[in-house]
Amino acid sequence: MTFGDWMQSTQSGVESRLDQFLPAADAVPHKLHAAMRYALLGGGKRVRPLLVMAAGELFDADQDTLARAACALEMIHVYSLVHDDMPCMDDDALRRGKPTVHIAYDEATALLVGDALQSQAFMLLADGAAIPPARQMAMIKLLAHASGSAGMCGGQAIDLDSVGLALSLPQLEQMHQLKTGALLRAAVILGALAGKELTPDDMTALNAYARAVGLAFQVVDDVLDATADSATLGKTAGKDAAANKPTYVSILGLEPSKALAEQLRCDAHAALAPFGDKARRLRELADLVVQRKA
Amino acid sequence: MTFGDWMQSTQSGVESRLDQFLPAADAVPHKLHAAMRYALLGGGKRVRPLLVMAAGELFDADQDTLARAACALEMIHVYSLVHDDMPCMDDDALRRGKPTVHIAYDEATALLVGDALQSQAFMLLADGAAIPPARQMAMIKLLAHASGSAGMCGGQAIDLDSVGLALSLPQLEQMHQLKTGALLRAAVILGALAGKELTPDDMTALNAYARAVGLAFQVVDDVLDATADSATLGKTAGKDAAANKPTYVSILGLEPSKALAEQLRCDAHAALAPFGDKARRLRELADLVVQRKA
Repeated sequence: MTFGDWMQSTQSGVESRLDQFLPAADAVPHKLHAAMRYALLGGGKRVRPLLVMAAGELFDADQDTLARAACALEMIHVYSLVHDDMPCMDDDALRRGKPTVHIAYDEATALLVGDALQSQAFMLLADGAAIPPARQMAMIKLLAHASGSAGMCGGQAIDLDSVGLALSLPQLEQMHQLKTGALLRAAVILGALAGKELTPDDMTALNAYARAVGLAFQVVDDVLDATADSATLGKTAGKDAAANKPTYVSILGLEPSKALAEQLRCDAHAALAPFGDKARRLRELADLVVQRKA
Repeated sequence: MTFGDWMQSTQSGVESRLDQFLPAADAVPHKLHAAMRYALLGGGKRVRPLLVMAAGELFDADQDTLARAACALEMIHVYSLVHDDMPCMDDDALRRGKPTVHIAYDEATALLVGDALQSQAFMLLADGAAIPPARQMAMIKLLAHASGSAGMCGGQAIDLDSVGLALSLPQLEQMHQLKTGALLRAAVILGALAGKELTPDDMTALNAYARAVGLAFQVVDDVLDATADSATLGKTAGKDAAANKPTYVSILGLEPSKALAEQLRCDAHAALAPFGDKARRLRELADLVVQRKA
């Protein structure tokens, strides 16, 4: 199967599992459930689910467990976008080419959509029953850690506090390792854990891969924010510069940022060497992250 | 030990475990962690933790598991208060006698405090290791269900949509069963699950108790909102009437509401009959919920 076909079939599989794992639109309370579905369905590159599925393929993981992990991660990611877009945070009206949740509904609903999606993510993982409970517990622990104040939320807090500051490159990297890196790493490790207990060597290799892909993702985001238009991105372009936020482009410049992304792509490939050809999809995803246009 | 002494020693035990289960104030990001500690520590009646500990006592539960469940529930409860107080929801400046988080810090921080506390709650439960993993998983599932769109968040959504509407008594009850009842029920069941697998009879009795206490809690809240002053409550009094929200007092009147609370207290006692004297603390907590002055 070509990478393109694999990606498309994985994305459409994730879409239908997300639909199935969400409360029905006609379940009470209607408006909240409709807004949760609006936020989650029908858009997005599904990068985290793709990473989960690719890492799972490497370790012949159980398919139901993988689907739950992929959808749980996407729910956490989307809840963070919904909250991030609110007026008290980034105040953004456009996401994935559609009005953001607080615009399409209202702010209170957006707040609750995010809160309820986070609960739903943990319910999904706790509901699975195909792998040993101890490993399932490790997956829940990992998701909670990656989502909370030592992970994604912590990164957002640092991001808020860094507006207008001259961050050093290591400080910028630390912020992104938490803000987006923690969840991307969780995607890789959750997919692998759905397959087997990880050896220290597995963990070292997967962490190195995830670190490179996570940083590359952010560097490319910054490059695109500086070079692409809103229609292509499906969200407001040029926001970071306008908000005086430190980015790779503002610190390193455009061309060095592109070179860094390419270097990180090579690092990601190198980290996967121990796994041979079976890590093909993870390699192709590293390429996708760096070479994407939106 | 008198109930008063038990309550005080339990509250202070919960306070010190909450302190221990939260990230240190000097851990990065400082402001987020300081705000999480500000929101969670040093206040509150700790009704949910008290219910967890009392239900655990009934089934000789493991103490570490109980403490984790008690603190996880309190984290969920407090995150919901922090979000509920934000300008886009209830817009309240006072909570537990202190400025609310978005006033003491800022709105974006309040949003992240709530998000991170929810993650932290699931991490706490997943980190425990003293009971069989399958029972631990049941606890996580229950907490996720009680917190999400079919529980607390769902109740808040119904609450938002009911402002200015003439709710019937059953509609009001349904809203409260989700908004506050789901978490109070989770407190009782989590405490019991920390002790043993529950039989269907246990579950029936505990559910009946939790339902009565949950409703009584809300009826008394409405009575207090209509009769007490802000200084006594530690939060803004008379808000519901001002916001034109349906309450037990607005639907039933003041005296019938008080009589209903007393009836529910008796129902709670009756539900505990099968457990004999060992359910003493749960009985005393039902009394506390109904007879409290704030």
